[in-house]
Amino acid sequence: MANPYDIGLGKTAANYQPLTPLVFLARAAGVHPHHTAVIYGGQRYSYAEFYTRCRRLASALAGHRIGAGGTVSVMLANTPAMLEAHYGVPMAGAVLHTINTRLDAPAVAFMLDHADTAVLIADTEFAPVIREALALARVKPVVIDYADAECGLDGERLGQFDYEAFVASGDPAYAWQMPSDEWNAIALNYTSGTTGNPKGVVYHHRGAHLMCYANTLATGMGQHPVYLWTLPMFHCNGWCFPWSLSLVAGTHVCLRLVRSKAIYDAIAEHQVTHLSGAPFVMACLLNAGEEDRRPFDHRVAFNHAAAPPPAAVLARMDEAGFELTHLYGLTETYGPATLNEWHAAWDELAPEERLAKRIRQGVRYHALEDLTVMDPETMARVPADGDTLGEVMFRGNIVMKGYLKNAEATEAAFAGGWFHSGDLGVMHEDGYIQLKDRSKDIIISGGENISSIELEDVLYKHPAVLAAAVVAKPDAKWGETPCAFIETRPGATVTAEEIIAWCKEKLARYKCPRYVVFTELPKTSTGKIQKFRLREMAKES
Amino acid sequence: MANPYDIGLGKTAANYQPLTPLVFLARAAGVHPHHTAVIYGGQRYSYAEFYTRCRRLASALAGHRIGAGGTVSVMLANTPAMLEAHYGVPMAGAVLHTINTRLDAPAVAFMLDHADTAVLIADTEFAPVIREALALARVKPVVIDYADAECGLDGERLGQFDYEAFVASGDPAYAWQMPSDEWNAIALNYTSGTTGNPKGVVYHHRGAHLMCYANTLATGMGQHPVYLWTLPMFHCNGWCFPWSLSLVAGTHVCLRLVRSKAIYDAIAEHQVTHLSGAPFVMACLLNAGEEDRRPFDHRVAFNHAAAPPPAAVLARMDEAGFELTHLYGLTETYGPATLNEWHAAWDELAPEERLAKRIRQGVRYHALEDLTVMDPETMARVPADGDTLGEVMFRGNIVMKGYLKNAEATEAAFAGGWFHSGDLGVMHEDGYIQLKDRSKDIIISGGENISSIELEDVLYKHPAVLAAAVVAKPDAKWGETPCAFIETRPGATVTAEEIIAWCKEKLARYKCPRYVVFTELPKTSTGKIQKFRLREMAKES
Repeated sequence: MANPYDIGLGKTAANYQPLTPLVFLARAAGVHPHHTAVIYGGQRYSYAEFYTRCRRLASALAGHRIGAGGTVSVMLANTPAMLEAHYGVPMAGAVLHTINTRLDAPAVAFMLDHADTAVLIADTEFAPVIREALALARVKPVVIDYADAECGLDGERLGQFDYEAFVASGDPAYAWQMPSDEWNAIALNYTSGTTGNPKGVVYHHRGAHLMCYANTLATGMGQHPVYLWTLPMFHCNGWCFPWSLSLVAGTHVCLRLVRSKAIYDAIAEHQVTHLSGAPFVMACLLNAGEEDRRPFDHRVAFNHAAAPPPAAVLARMDEAGFELTHLYGLTETYGPATLNEWHAAWDELAPEERLAKRIRQGVRYHALEDLTVMDPETMARVPADGDTLGEVMFRGNIVMKGYLKNAEATEAAFAGGWFHSGDLGVMHEDGYIQLKDRSKDIIISGGENISSIELEDVLYKHPAVLAAAVVAKPDAKWGETPCAFIETRPGATVTAEEIIAWCKEKLARYKCPRYVVFTELPKTSTGKIQKFRLREMAKES
Repeated sequence: MANPYDIGLGKTAANYQPLTPLVFLARAAGVHPHHTAVIYGGQRYSYAEFYTRCRRLASALAGHRIGAGGTVSVMLANTPAMLEAHYGVPMAGAVLHTINTRLDAPAVAFMLDHADTAVLIADTEFAPVIREALALARVKPVVIDYADAECGLDGERLGQFDYEAFVASGDPAYAWQMPSDEWNAIALNYTSGTTGNPKGVVYHHRGAHLMCYANTLATGMGQHPVYLWTLPMFHCNGWCFPWSLSLVAGTHVCLRLVRSKAIYDAIAEHQVTHLSGAPFVMACLLNAGEEDRRPFDHRVAFNHAAAPPPAAVLARMDEAGFELTHLYGLTETYGPATLNEWHAAWDELAPEERLAKRIRQGVRYHALEDLTVMDPETMARVPADGDTLGEVMFRGNIVMKGYLKNAEATEAAFAGGWFHSGDLGVMHEDGYIQLKDRSKDIIISGGENISSIELEDVLYKHPAVLAAAVVAKPDAKWGETPCAFIETRPGATVTAEEIIAWCKEKLARYKCPRYVVFTELPKTSTGKIQKFRLREMAKES
């Protein structure tokens, strides 16, 4: 028998609209037009102005025939232009590709070609890299230069347009269209893959919309939060906070460079309520000199992700006026997809037990439908015993659309109907997960992922190197930093300085090892290097 | 050229799951199993227990072959069983139909037949009506009796099962399934139509899911709110709050009867943070005798909908410790779909101006994609001048799926891609809407339009007036003329002449009532004044 609830009750424009974060900006601009949307040094944009600038950008892009399926790549610091790109690009129906500003030219060129970039907006600070990348790339995008007036930066102009002039050329009342489908791509983020070329992670409008709700819930944002940009927006679209703030008509405080004085100033002057960042941002705050500090008398929510800092750091952050929220996720999950949802009762625990609760990655984000730890071979859930290792797996609407032009990798990542994170962890009795190790040997330094395999590839090419292995060494400032273990060829001699210089020639500076140890590498009977031993040595070295 | 962002990037179980509020209960039970989900008198259910009871109910229903397309009708007060039905019924894939507990047997019989009810769960208090309705109805549902042990109610048993026994027969670990599609129906609510048969408004899982986010945002719910059930859950599924609380692991405080003492007791004892209700709930609170009051030292959010109460009531509620949030919506919009989003700056306005802001219905709910006021003939937006009347129209994901088995009414309601509310209003310059009158509540006298709401506002300010309603009375000379119905405060005396003189002081002469009737105002079960009755009385008076 036909289901009566399915007859004559289809989707119409009245009762179905694609989910997109763009509507939240339209709402904020309509309801709070005079509220400050963006602060950047002396610059201020109200929500009405911000929305208008985004519409102008969208209109100008559309005027250059950028639309559905087109990629707009941006290499921008945490400036107002970066926020505008998050709205203006998808309002034109295009896809926003944010480039890590620390990448070198070959990596950028690869991405421009892979993404088939139609427009490139780049901060003139990065002109040297961009110039080289454009020379290497097959694509010939329209290039728009962003000269950061606030910072007095005015580097070499490479493009046909100046950003401000380009925006000004657009229609302030541009009638942007809703996406034709909520499954349409909104953003593209390349992961720093451990092997081979980086993979292009595609986000859709639906996921970005749901992340807005989930982010504000997870981080306890009320109406009109003030959010300080210490997390790079090129990293998972700043965990989707560029969009999330519109939901609650919040104020973005842009910051080009993460420096302790600038952070303290922003907190004191703008009454910052929330910020997110890697442990190195905490180090930056806690190690600031007296002259860089400013008192503030409100509590500031600090969202940190992945590997938690040591207990002493947590305690000092608490004393310094910060409320920590521990999140975890991957580029493939739009940024955070788990939350260490805190129980008030845990405040009463003894310090050691309390810490044991705090370092766990936690439970699923509200917008994630399922989270578990499984044996990837059998796809059986591991027992919730806090001990049995398995792979952390995600399922739900904030898992990426897939990898661009890489069906094989997409299928592998989604095998069995779950996203395989590649992270190893355990499930505790109370349903909270905890990461135990990274299966892919990613080193997270200053919030950036560094692939130990990529680094090892470079080391292996050095004529004096017989074998090499890179592991993470705990670091007070950066969280982790790469430590290279090298076994030299018989008769060859090489110094640590020479090894580091070799890497700097071939890799972005932040990826290079800061410690080099010459030793015979410990191996298993089958010849596999025993990285866990090296990790112990790195801790002690 | 094919869009590369659409190739090989389809939906899989890993990255796409239907939106449904059911996942929020699963999450709350997993993360906060010991937190109190439901309080009812001496009864307490933790989230683990509540989730288990819902799964048992779903399992027991599934055991009776109730599933997709099946309707489970319930006639229940605001009891734990009503909350369980909101989860257990859709977990079985079925549709929850909540019946207004004040309806008479023929109306109930009509609904049971129209909904093709397979199972009926009814409180034994309503056995007399149910008995008669079942005799009148064509359908022969499985009947389950709910005897409210907490209230010592144990009326006549009409069914094959006792509710508690039925729940107990279900599997506590029942593996409920996600809906096969987020567009699937989750609930059915009949509108109390003023003409003809009631229409069955169908809600889907997608809309109910999004309402959870929107409700918690609009009413400022943090983690673990305590929500007092003064709004009937049979009314628009309690504005979707039975589902919304799970998102923030809140506590439901059930209340069978809305009485001032019980409300004050609950606020003081359970630290209620939120409640919703019609203006009559405010009256109930404000007019409570000293012996029924209990002091409390926290602020309580009170969500009220549609026609705002007079200024004096607002001020007294404020003094009594309540924070008012003004919402508006219809059965067709899952309950609230607009929000009078308050600007802090308005707190500084002079009282009269402040009141003018407060009585507006406001802006679109976060989960609504568009809201406007249009001329229904031309479908052109009225100017945002605060003066030009038009019909309030809604568009978005929290507009109903449509009317069950009524394609004609569905098409009419969605004509032109907007849901036509039937409510008249204006759009103010700042984008806030204000209801001016229901089309049928405009009184046309001597060719002039008179707003009954404007007139009622004036009447409410009279010290002797407890409640007032104005309708059109047919008039040989003027066509129509305003007729005021007034319920006086206990002990107050006032004459018709005094009322008319009061109006003449404050309004243009032609707007003043020419007839004044003192009577108790007839109200619907949800506290709305029944104007159609007054119109009949006006004709005869």
